[in-house]
Amino acid sequence: MPVTLTSVAQLAGVSVSTASRALTGHPSVQPATRTRVVEAAANLRYRPNRMAAALRTRRSGLVGLVVNNLWNATFNTVAETLQSWGAEAGWQVLVCTTGGDADREAAFLDTALDHGFDGVVVAGSGANHDRVNALLDAGTAVVTTNREVPGARAPSVVLDYRRAAQLATEHLLAAGHTRIATVSATDAVTSGREQHAGVVAALAAAGLPLLPDLVHRGPFTTEFGRAAVTALLAHPTPPTALLVTNHEAAGGVLPVLTGQGTVVPRELSVVMTEDEPFFGWWPPRLTAVDNRAAEQARTAAELLHAQLDGTAAPGPSQRLVEPVLVVRDSVGPPPR
Amino acid sequence: MPVTLTSVAQLAGVSVSTASRALTGHPSVQPATRTRVVEAAANLRYRPNRMAAALRTRRSGLVGLVVNNLWNATFNTVAETLQSWGAEAGWQVLVCTTGGDADREAAFLDTALDHGFDGVVVAGSGANHDRVNALLDAGTAVVTTNREVPGARAPSVVLDYRRAAQLATEHLLAAGHTRIATVSATDAVTSGREQHAGVVAALAAAGLPLLPDLVHRGPFTTEFGRAAVTALLAHPTPPTALLVTNHEAAGGVLPVLTGQGTVVPRELSVVMTEDEPFFGWWPPRLTAVDNRAAEQARTAAELLHAQLDGTAAPGPSQRLVEPVLVVRDSVGPPPR
Repeated sequence: MPVTLTSVAQLAGVSVSTASRALTGHPSVQPATRTRVVEAAANLRYRPNRMAAALRTRRSGLVGLVVNNLWNATFNTVAETLQSWGAEAGWQVLVCTTGGDADREAAFLDTALDHGFDGVVVAGSGANHDRVNALLDAGTAVVTTNREVPGARAPSVVLDYRRAAQLATEHLLAAGHTRIATVSATDAVTSGREQHAGVVAALAAAGLPLLPDLVHRGPFTTEFGRAAVTALLAHPTPPTALLVTNHEAAGGVLPVLTGQGTVVPRELSVVMTEDEPFFGWWPPRLTAVDNRAAEQARTAAELLHAQLDGTAAPGPSQRLVEPVLVVRDSVGPPPR
Repeated sequence: MPVTLTSVAQLAGVSVSTASRALTGHPSVQPATRTRVVEAAANLRYRPNRMAAALRTRRSGLVGLVVNNLWNATFNTVAETLQSWGAEAGWQVLVCTTGGDADREAAFLDTALDHGFDGVVVAGSGANHDRVNALLDAGTAVVTTNREVPGARAPSVVLDYRRAAQLATEHLLAAGHTRIATVSATDAVTSGREQHAGVVAALAAAGLPLLPDLVHRGPFTTEFGRAAVTALLAHPTPPTALLVTNHEAAGGVLPVLTGQGTVVPRELSVVMTEDEPFFGWWPPRLTAVDNRAAEQARTAAELLHAQLDGTAAPGPSQRLVEPVLVVRDSVGPPPR
């Protein structure tokens, strides 16, 4: 059984209320008494009841993070970066994955509210603005990241997705490609909308049209990536370059390229987005746009910390994180 | 502000204590009164204070999971499998990563104790048996998995690591290899100890000695993998096959093979352990031993559930999960 305050008080020879005041630093307690109580607590390895303390002080020491999954490098980088911040800053960061399911996300946000979490970072479905606002109303610090949550009043940190797709497209254009295929997300999410706009903008700046039959937009699944690249490789006039902005679909694109023996970049130039370690291990090493997930997480932690400290300016705000092109070996000139 | 029980009682026109009894199903409350209170609670979207309820009932609805990191596929598979179980079974599973740091793990286990988590799954450092036992003493359900926690009284679920390394080694022996190099973990952890023993046993069964200068054992880091494979490739008589049982080191091994242009399997056969999706995307697709992380997690959930239900047999126990060899394209005959 856990050691109680009563045992500490008994060992120190004081009342329970004196023991409590001594441990919380109340000025009415004599220094000698305080020393006796602190020593008794140390000897008994007393741990204050944090649930009761949380009820009293409205500070639980807990920060929640909700992500869609943990196998995507962006999400696990955000999780590890926030947990390292928490270890430094004195918060226990607890992670929930939802498979992108808005209901499971809502259940987690309710848990965070019910258990008095001090803060929550949402890198999730993009839904649940009502839960986000309910947490803010209850005095919980909230930051959204990776995807916008329309209607939420929390500050957000997201990648400049449009710029990311522009950087990648410009890199392919510079190598001489004009038949550029994309495997991307739909307009239903910020990243899909913005990255598509970035591709269109870069092509337009080069005086090139978007080629609709080389554009594949769909869900965040490997199955979609597999189907999209299979269709592209079977096209009567195949693309000379491929830009994969739907990160989860990459897990379908790469095995099809491997399986069909497509020689990258001689037959097809490839640019990925959301850089992750194994893109640099692939033969050939894959050129990618880095979405700087750790930087997003550090910025989110900073915005959260300001709310936890009470130093944040009120109201919603948006921070855009600047992407970086990481040039490796998967882009070459178009085949003759 | 959250809606309080007082507001519910006012709307229903009853006392706070009657409202409380009505919502907890106390038999002394008249059905008509109960209906009025339940409707008032629904109209006000009342949520009972779960922290106070947890103090009263000693049931928080929370299950913790501690893992070393989230980028290793084993850990993120365990996390996602347990969170799916939780979503089904009615527990919120909260994940903590520690970077393998035993002190951060201890801090999380203290948080789980302090906040009255109902259960904890430990897939972590292998240290902290005292914290595991303290949780068990406090009535918390605990299961350890992935790595043994010596001295802990919780049931454990681990891979049959010895068998995993034996399977991989036998597969290389069957292809004709006798100069088999290993990049593995040290004797300080179960997996390192058992997998090394499995390699030695498979070689001995084939009448072959272990070749000490082809054995590289070290920490779970990409740097170690990089250094080990660089040394192996520079060996005056290089190995014809490589078995990587230190999974984190794989992130150092693969980029060196790519960087040096090593042709797999013509110049070097390769077998990995802890299969993960991208091993099947690699050109050539990498043969690997699957540690069945999802099966480990499902078994852990089952053992945890039995404790949460109060149907578990008391005392420690060990379940071994059987590994499976996944044959792909990275093993061939030794070069002449």
